[in-house]
Amino acid sequence: MSLGIVILGSTGSIGTQALDVIRSMPERFRVVGLAAGSNVGLLEKQIEEFRPKAASLASIEAAHKLQERNLPGLEILTGPNAMEEMVEREDVDLVLNAVVGAAGILPTLAAIRAGKDVALANKETLVAAGNVVMEAVKEHNVRLLPVDSEHSAIFQCLQGVGDRDLHKVILTASGGPFRESTKEELERVTVGEALAHPTWNMGGKITIDSATLMNKGLEVIEAHWLFQVPPERIEVVIHPQSIVHSLVELSDGSVIAQLGVADMRLPIQYALTYPERLNSPAERLSLIEVGRLDFEAPDVERFPCLRLAYEALAVGGTFPTVLNAANEVAVQAFMQGRIGFTDIPRLIESALEQHRGVIKPDLEDILEADREGREYLIKLVNS
Amino acid sequence: MSLGIVILGSTGSIGTQALDVIRSMPERFRVVGLAAGSNVGLLEKQIEEFRPKAASLASIEAAHKLQERNLPGLEILTGPNAMEEMVEREDVDLVLNAVVGAAGILPTLAAIRAGKDVALANKETLVAAGNVVMEAVKEHNVRLLPVDSEHSAIFQCLQGVGDRDLHKVILTASGGPFRESTKEELERVTVGEALAHPTWNMGGKITIDSATLMNKGLEVIEAHWLFQVPPERIEVVIHPQSIVHSLVELSDGSVIAQLGVADMRLPIQYALTYPERLNSPAERLSLIEVGRLDFEAPDVERFPCLRLAYEALAVGGTFPTVLNAANEVAVQAFMQGRIGFTDIPRLIESALEQHRGVIKPDLEDILEADREGREYLIKLVNS
Repeated sequence: MSLGIVILGSTGSIGTQALDVIRSMPERFRVVGLAAGSNVGLLEKQIEEFRPKAASLASIEAAHKLQERNLPGLEILTGPNAMEEMVEREDVDLVLNAVVGAAGILPTLAAIRAGKDVALANKETLVAAGNVVMEAVKEHNVRLLPVDSEHSAIFQCLQGVGDRDLHKVILTASGGPFRESTKEELERVTVGEALAHPTWNMGGKITIDSATLMNKGLEVIEAHWLFQVPPERIEVVIHPQSIVHSLVELSDGSVIAQLGVADMRLPIQYALTYPERLNSPAERLSLIEVGRLDFEAPDVERFPCLRLAYEALAVGGTFPTVLNAANEVAVQAFMQGRIGFTDIPRLIESALEQHRGVIKPDLEDILEADREGREYLIKLVNS
Repeated sequence: MSLGIVILGSTGSIGTQALDVIRSMPERFRVVGLAAGSNVGLLEKQIEEFRPKAASLASIEAAHKLQERNLPGLEILTGPNAMEEMVEREDVDLVLNAVVGAAGILPTLAAIRAGKDVALANKETLVAAGNVVMEAVKEHNVRLLPVDSEHSAIFQCLQGVGDRDLHKVILTASGGPFRESTKEELERVTVGEALAHPTWNMGGKITIDSATLMNKGLEVIEAHWLFQVPPERIEVVIHPQSIVHSLVELSDGSVIAQLGVADMRLPIQYALTYPERLNSPAERLSLIEVGRLDFEAPDVERFPCLRLAYEALAVGGTFPTVLNAANEVAVQAFMQGRIGFTDIPRLIESALEQHRGVIKPDLEDILEADREGREYLIKLVNS
């Protein structure tokens, strides 16, 4: 029996790698829908290969271009609710959400509410709207499968572990390209330098987030929701080789880790085929070839984004929403050359300081906090 | 409900640490029987504290001494079948076999055949009699729980993993005190040097086995039987810090590892409380404090015992039995100063070369091969 799958963000880094995985096991999946932002060229190629029933483009202009190709039997969606419409289709069993940013929140919720399992690569969904999403998961009794390599690692380590036995989550971080840079050097970091990640091949936003350690901060918040662990039981360890993808400490002190080469196709495949494991084209790990694994404490002095994420999570409510919204705008402004690298945490901290939060937010509160965080930051950037 | 437990080898390193574990959870266990070799002083103290119904001593002289103490309500057993009698008692639920050497085979089999779960610290049982033991486990539907830190690690990593998903077992080895010694230096190793293990606090025989890497060879054979993996899918990796206790590679290439401080109370406790995990007095692991984990290939040129174990396992049948028997005699002769360190593999290889083996041995064949291996080696040592 093949699973009907929708991929949100199909032309991005995770989306294309997910299609690699699906290509290698054609009998397991029917690609029902593909959603992209504006890359109509690549989306068209994907449509020709995987023959989905529906495709969506966030850009209306791009959607018009696709329409002009007159692809047979293809429903083309666009507009603000296009992804939600797509995931709610009856022939969908599983939704891979690989959209970047808070734009992933509403499609994730729509999928959950329609009773679909969700493979979540969009960590901002949980960062910004963790309580609402987790309540919906519970209510609709669907699977929320992590795709992030760290959360997939934790999820894998927890197979066969009793709920009460999880004592601590230990997230590893490569440390990014500036792990050894001084504070002064960080002030002068260029966009090109920040986009050169040492171990993972990823999209632009997550690469910048890795360089600031905000990515790890967002992952701390994501882990809190996925595994129901309080922030003081989530530890971040810098591990430059990116071989140990994360670890859990159990109640007896035993530590279970998941390791592998840095290849996103592995966690993507596990999320798509869970609970089964299938052969993978990814390279096998040789510890002897790797030779050495290093671990060190993160420096929140030089990388304040990590501290800000812990602080936002500790307060809770809409504070992580604002953290995430402000970060999205700040990263974009940095990539456009409008602010410096160390302005990113500075502006986010300012957004958090001015926020008057709601502690038990509903979806409206979250969307409002997200808007507010963005607007505040856009003003700061423009001033 | 408390479990009735028998500890075979209660005055040894594993036995005393098991009693430490049991002391910390008195409501979980009734100590029904304790068996020791000749250490009547320590055994008496253990009897006074844990009040078993039965005690046994391998040494008849020591058993007489214990008899003279007139301990109330204590049945004292001795003679060749004492341990077997003890494990068959009706009030026994679990047998911890921490006897050293092939002497552990018959009590293990007696426990299994009496329907008792066995926590196995006596790896020689599986090395010498793997096929017979595993058949009995299957037939009598009991649990065989590994206590060795490496096999406990693998067993922990495999919780929640499907049978078909185990692709490879990766056993770590500290490398022993002579990891960096040259061949010439190995020729001159003294007993004192060989007994100084860098990371684990263990008994004499296993410490020498660690120094020759025969311990890892025996563990390869043990892993073969416990986890039903062919030798070509069992890898040994030298890992001097002894933090990663072992790993498994799954069918998709994902690698799961178990880590922790080097404290035998952890794997002992897991075997005794399985599938539950309880709090432990063992120190918690801090990867940041450890800082660095190294891995390298073992050198079978300098440590031929590992090669001999793989070869014996590849041929199978009674060859591992002879390997183990010859090793026991050789280690004893080395500890008595009668042979040199590098004579150990030399003599074992000679014993394997002269052996005419049985490929599907029954218990009689195994006991005969064990005797033959010992006698042959004693002759070699004396010549």
